[in-house]
Amino acid sequence: MTAALLEQYRERIRTELDRVVDFWLKFSHDKEHGGYFNCLGKDGKVYDELKYVWLQGRQICSDAQLVLTFRCCISAKICSGSGLQRPGGKCAFCLTRDGRAVKVQRTIFSECFYVMAMDELSRITQDKEMQADAESMMDRLIFWVQTDSSELGRPQLPGDPPINSMAVPMMLLCLVDQLTEGRTDVAEKYKDLSMWCVERILQHIQRDGKAILENVTLNGKELPGCQGRLQNPGHALEAGWFLLQYAQKKGDVQLQKTAVDKFMEIPFHTGWDKQHGGLFYFLDVDNHCPTQLEWNMKLWWPHCEALIAYLMAYSHNREPVLLERFKQIYDYTFKHFSDEEHGEWFGYLSRFFHVPRCLYMCEKLLDGLLERQDS
Amino acid sequence: MTAALLEQYRERIRTELDRVVDFWLKFSHDKEHGGYFNCLGKDGKVYDELKYVWLQGRQICSDAQLVLTFRCCISAKICSGSGLQRPGGKCAFCLTRDGRAVKVQRTIFSECFYVMAMDELSRITQDKEMQADAESMMDRLIFWVQTDSSELGRPQLPGDPPINSMAVPMMLLCLVDQLTEGRTDVAEKYKDLSMWCVERILQHIQRDGKAILENVTLNGKELPGCQGRLQNPGHALEAGWFLLQYAQKKGDVQLQKTAVDKFMEIPFHTGWDKQHGGLFYFLDVDNHCPTQLEWNMKLWWPHCEALIAYLMAYSHNREPVLLERFKQIYDYTFKHFSDEEHGEWFGYLSRFFHVPRCLYMCEKLLDGLLERQDS
Repeated sequence: MTAALLEQYRERIRTELDRVVDFWLKFSHDKEHGGYFNCLGKDGKVYDELKYVWLQGRQICSDAQLVLTFRCCISAKICSGSGLQRPGGKCAFCLTRDGRAVKVQRTIFSECFYVMAMDELSRITQDKEMQADAESMMDRLIFWVQTDSSELGRPQLPGDPPINSMAVPMMLLCLVDQLTEGRTDVAEKYKDLSMWCVERILQHIQRDGKAILENVTLNGKELPGCQGRLQNPGHALEAGWFLLQYAQKKGDVQLQKTAVDKFMEIPFHTGWDKQHGGLFYFLDVDNHCPTQLEWNMKLWWPHCEALIAYLMAYSHNREPVLLERFKQIYDYTFKHFSDEEHGEWFGYLSRFFHVPRCLYMCEKLLDGLLERQDS
Repeated sequence: MTAALLEQYRERIRTELDRVVDFWLKFSHDKEHGGYFNCLGKDGKVYDELKYVWLQGRQICSDAQLVLTFRCCISAKICSGSGLQRPGGKCAFCLTRDGRAVKVQRTIFSECFYVMAMDELSRITQDKEMQADAESMMDRLIFWVQTDSSELGRPQLPGDPPINSMAVPMMLLCLVDQLTEGRTDVAEKYKDLSMWCVERILQHIQRDGKAILENVTLNGKELPGCQGRLQNPGHALEAGWFLLQYAQKKGDVQLQKTAVDKFMEIPFHTGWDKQHGGLFYFLDVDNHCPTQLEWNMKLWWPHCEALIAYLMAYSHNREPVLLERFKQIYDYTFKHFSDEEHGEWFGYLSRFFHVPRCLYMCEKLLDGLLERQDS
C-alpha cells in the first residue's frame, strides 16, 4: 500500500522533473552571449535580459550535473568575466546580457553561488585551476564571515552590531558539502567549518526550543524588534534537511532528531496556513503582522524545501507521520504550483534551482525507499 | 445635491483626521529619548522601537503644523544627533531608539525628509540657524542629483547608467514648495530647480502619451526590461497633484491639463482593479507580472494620494466626472482602510503622513469647494 503510493509519487515527480528541465534547456540559454536568461514568462519568453548571478551559478551547477559540459563552460565565461569580478574579490549581483555589472550587493551570496558553479564545473571538466578558483573564493568567504567583513563594503554602524542570520551558516554548510564530496583531503580542511556552521544554525532554536528564529545575536540570544521575531518556515525546513543530511553522514543520532523535531516539525506546524493550506512566507513569533508585505503569500520555494525535508525525514526513520506530512505538502504543491500547460511551476520571479533540486532529490529519495521496500 | 455630498465627505474626513491625529499623538511620542515610534500595532502598542528617519522627518513636520513646538524640538534633537549625521553629509535611514545609526541608504530620501522637518520647524521656532541648515542640506541634495552623486556611496557600475526615477524630481519639487512658501527670495533662488523638476517629471509620459512609467533614461526615453516597464499608479497620482498645485500657482493652463489627463486619468484607468476594486501597487505596462511580489496588493497610501488628486482636480475645473472618480476611491478607501475601532487605518508598516496629509488636504479642498458653493 505504501509502496504503491511511493511509486505514484515517483512517477509524477519524474514527469515533472523532465518537463521543468526541458523548459529551462529550451528557453533559458543565451546563445549569443553565453549565460542564462533568468526572467522567463510561463511561455518561455524572456521578459527581462538581466542575468542574476545567484541564478547563473545555480544553473551552471544544474547543467553540469546534466553533463552539458560545453554549455556550462560557455556560461562560466560570463561569470569569470570582468563584469562579475569586482574589486576586493566581490562578485556582482546582477549583470547586463553582455556581462556588465549592474549591481553589487554588500552580502556574501553571489560569491557563494560562484563557488558552487566553479566547483561543480571543475568536476566535469577536470580543470584543476577552476577547482582552485572555487576554493580560493571559499577561503575569502570564510575570512569575511569569521574574521573581517569590511571588504563587503557595509560600514559598521553603532546601532547595527553583527548578527547571526541563519542564511550564512546554512549557505557555508551547503558549500562545504559541495566542495568536499568525494574528496577526503578537502573534507579534512573544512571539518571545523562544518561544525561551526552546525553550531551557528542550532543557535536559531529559541523560546525554550519552541521556535526557529531567522536572526539571533552572535551568542545565540534573541534580538529585539521585528528582526528578532522573524520566522521563515521554508528556510527553517531547508536548514532541517541540510542538518539531517550532515547528521546522517556523521552518524550523529542526536542531531538527526533535532533536525526533524526542531527544524521540520516546528516550522511546519507554525508555518502551515490552517485555513487555506500552504506555507506562509514570513511569520512573527508573537503573532504581530510581519513588516514584509508578502508575508502571507504562498511561494513555490518553501514548498520545494518542505517536500525534500519530509521525504528525507521519512526515508531516515520511516515514521508514518512524516510521510503524511509529505503527502499534505505534495497534494498542495502539485495542485497549486505545477503548470501542466507550459511545463514550469507557478510562483514568482525565476524559479530554476529550487524546483529541479526538489524534484531531483525527491526522485532519488523515492528510489531509495522503493529499493529498500523491494528487498 | 452636490453640496450635500461634499458636506458629508467633509464631515467624515474631519472625524477621521481627528481620530488619526489623536492616535499618533497618544502612542507615537517617545517621552524618554525624544523622536517618534513608527511601528505601532493597531492598538497603539510599539512592536519595534527602530526610528525610521523618513517618518521622524514627516512627523516633526506634522507636529510643527499642529504647533506642538516643544515636542517637535525635542524630537528634532534626535535628528540632528551624531547617529543621524553621517560622513559626507549623509543622514542615516534608521536609528535605534536612543539615536544610534542602524542603516544608511545610498539614496537621497532620508536627507529630503530632514530638510522638510528642519524647514517646517524653523517656521514655528523662528530659528534662523535651523532654516539655514535646511537650505544647506537642500543645496547638497541638488549637488548630488544634478552634479555628482559619488558621496551617496553607490559605485557607478558599467551596466547601471544613471536613470530618471520619478521619485527624485517629485521629492525635490515638494521640497521647493516647502522651502519657498511665503518667502519670495528663496522662491527666486529655486525657480530654475522647479522648472527642472517639472520637466523631469513630464519625461515619464511614455508610449505616445498613453502611459506613465516610473523609470526612464536621462533623455526621457523608455528603459529596457522590467525596470523600464514599471508603473506605480499611486505614485503617478501623487505626481499629478504636485504638478497641478505647481501649475495653478504659475497659472500654466497647459500643465494643469497635463496633470489631470496624464498623471491622474491614466494611472486611475490602468491602476484600478476592475474585479475587486482598489488601486494596484505596481503594474507592468505590457501586462507581464511585475517582479515585486506585492504588486497586486492594495496599500493605503496610493488611495490617499488618489483622494487628494481627484478632489484637487475637481476643485480646479468642476468637471463632474472628476468628482465621480473621487467618490469611487472614497467609497473603497473608507470601506476597507479605516479602522473605527482603534482609530488609525489598516495598511502595512507605519502609516502616518500619507493618511493625515490626505485627510487634511481633502478637508481644506472641501472647505474651498463648499465656500465657493455657498457664495
